[in-house]
Amino acid sequence: MQSLQEKASEWSGVKAEDAFSIDETNLFQKLGLQAFINLSTDFYTRVYDDEEEWFRSIFANSKKEDAIQNQYEFFVQRMGGPPLYSQRKGHPALIGRHRPFPVTHQAAERWLHHIQLALDSATDIDADSKIKMMNFFRHTAFFLVAGDELKKQNQPAAPCKQGSTQPTTL
Amino acid sequence: MQSLQEKASEWSGVKAEDAFSIDETNLFQKLGLQAFINLSTDFYTRVYDDEEEWFRSIFANSKKEDAIQNQYEFFVQRMGGPPLYSQRKGHPALIGRHRPFPVTHQAAERWLHHIQLALDSATDIDADSKIKMMNFFRHTAFFLVAGDELKKQNQPAAPCKQGSTQPTTL
Repeated sequence: MQSLQEKASEWSGVKAEDAFSIDETNLFQKLGLQAFINLSTDFYTRVYDDEEEWFRSIFANSKKEDAIQNQYEFFVQRMGGPPLYSQRKGHPALIGRHRPFPVTHQAAERWLHHIQLALDSATDIDADSKIKMMNFFRHTAFFLVAGDELKKQNQPAAPCKQGSTQPTTL
Repeated sequence: MQSLQEKASEWSGVKAEDAFSIDETNLFQKLGLQAFINLSTDFYTRVYDDEEEWFRSIFANSKKEDAIQNQYEFFVQRMGGPPLYSQRKGHPALIGRHRPFPVTHQAAERWLHHIQLALDSATDIDADSKIKMMNFFRHTAFFLVAGDELKKQNQPAAPCKQGSTQPTTL
């Protein structure tokens, strides 16, 4: 069975080594906190204004300012900055925390569409960092699509059968 | 609704700020790679030899050497070292990756019993680091118990009903 990492690479077209090239330099030290706040603010402004209702509605139960803070604190923590996210909310637990949401291939592409536009218009992020971040975002988005598919393993079709999950090659 | 972080603190008795005091110093730089390899090797030797069959059986489908590598690479990455885990397997995604396993309160306590013994017998980890690490382990174990309970939201009782997960306060 394919691992989450393998599915993420296949679906995103981004190799794991490129996705995690964000770790080659400390992007937090290079860019500073404000660049991350600006990126997440721009991204969620696009998301909450999305003309595609099906996508916008995924975020309908979250306050925009909370979504922004959750995102930039995670990015800061993951890209070499202080562990702001864990101090406030615990482990990122990306798959577990995305569990309530339908993270489909289509949703991943829409998410990536908005983050690409937000990155493109960022004036406080250099070109090399943009490439590294976009590879990370693209790989991660499809990692979460792979994670979303794990949910189906626990949703029995009728007739009803409880449990019997097979451990996957995680 | 209680967040994962709040449940983890309540059940473990460890405040979030104490759990994440592992970030106050760079434990990887302080202890070195071998200390993490030794800890995970000692821990899993205890686990795979556990006289409690119910607990030992949770690991029956995993090779001991894989379990050791997965664990120490995650600890190294989380405690200030190179991102060994993500380069090989992607995001830690702690809740998602523990999904196949029954992470009950009882299992968390048994896991902690073994890691406490492994820490106690480690001669290459100083006393202060041991305290920080144990707080992190204890809080994280119950964070995963809280994560495990999310699974039940997708397991409908008979009569069979698909889906209808409520977004939780993650």
